[in-house]
Amino acid sequence: MQHLRIVDYLSSKLHIESDSISTLFDTCILKEIKKNDFLLSENDYCKHTFFVEKGLLRQYSIDDNGKEHTISFAPENWFVTDRESVYFDSPSRYYIQALEDSEVVLIDENFIQLLSEKIPSFTTFNDRLLHNHIRHLQNRINLLLSASAERRYLEFIEMYPDILLRVPLTMVASYLGITPESLSRVRKDLARKNFKK
Amino acid sequence: MQHLRIVDYLSSKLHIESDSISTLFDTCILKEIKKNDFLLSENDYCKHTFFVEKGLLRQYSIDDNGKEHTISFAPENWFVTDRESVYFDSPSRYYIQALEDSEVVLIDENFIQLLSEKIPSFTTFNDRLLHNHIRHLQNRINLLLSASAERRYLEFIEMYPDILLRVPLTMVASYLGITPESLSRVRKDLARKNFKK
Repeated sequence: MQHLRIVDYLSSKLHIESDSISTLFDTCILKEIKKNDFLLSENDYCKHTFFVEKGLLRQYSIDDNGKEHTISFAPENWFVTDRESVYFDSPSRYYIQALEDSEVVLIDENFIQLLSEKIPSFTTFNDRLLHNHIRHLQNRINLLLSASAERRYLEFIEMYPDILLRVPLTMVASYLGITPESLSRVRKDLARKNFKK
Repeated sequence: MQHLRIVDYLSSKLHIESDSISTLFDTCILKEIKKNDFLLSENDYCKHTFFVEKGLLRQYSIDDNGKEHTISFAPENWFVTDRESVYFDSPSRYYIQALEDSEVVLIDENFIQLLSEKIPSFTTFNDRLLHNHIRHLQNRINLLLSASAERRYLEFIEMYPDILLRVPLTMVASYLGITPESLSRVRKDLARKNFKK
């Protein structure tokens, strides 16, 4: 199998040599997915966590009026999944779609089990990933409840510094819970402030 | 030590006899907290998870304009904490305050370690709690992005069936991310619909 980003990612996070874990990934499935194709659709049962080797994914829901709401973006080196569906074996409320031609590593519970057995520090790392996920979700709720459109946008840029040129602004607005018009206004105001500096 | 709800709660969830675990809780601190007093304030370092034995807590943030935003309520048998602060050792963005005279069990990392060692099924249960937390947070984000005020309110009632009479409606509105006026309107509309049935 070709050299995988996930091997570099994990060896860097776990402070171990990539050679020592690369063979573990020989059985992993690397899936190519074309722009606009889906890894998950509403009411599917999500069976995998997806690690993005290349490209960009988006997780979103569609409301009763057919409007899309972005839950998350996942560029290279990000994980994305519907943990509710995977862990509680329930039909998903979400879609996961490729915004660019992408490659993802499919990770299932068995593989997580294997990594836990073979790499002593993996369990702690995985636990930290869960807590980090909770941290981001809770912070996002707080932002949605309490923050101005400008602050939401600034935190978005900090979290996803390199994807702004890769996604339509309507999708960014739907992530922030504001209208595209508000987002345009915020961006103009910020550009003006920066110009004055 | 008096008989604790947390012992019944865990023995029921873990399908074990409460007698077999009750002595583990002998070293736990049971803290009484008066109505309006705080277990956590912004910029504090949160060191515990709180299990509510009696009473009702609220976790909230205060924005730059002094407005309060409710992150969660915790009535009897609920856990509440700022996982970000506990796990990443960072100053908290939140307050945790008693809305009624309350009693809480203080749980720290050492105690979780002890439970993991003494009760084989505890680790799996604790992992499930984390995933359940993620499930609720993600669903809440989706509701905040996509759902009508009425749907948010109906999901709130389902999640917290018995606290509506115990908290001011302004706090419920601040949990739902809507104005108190919207909440009143939603409640009137629902009452009218139910009356017509």
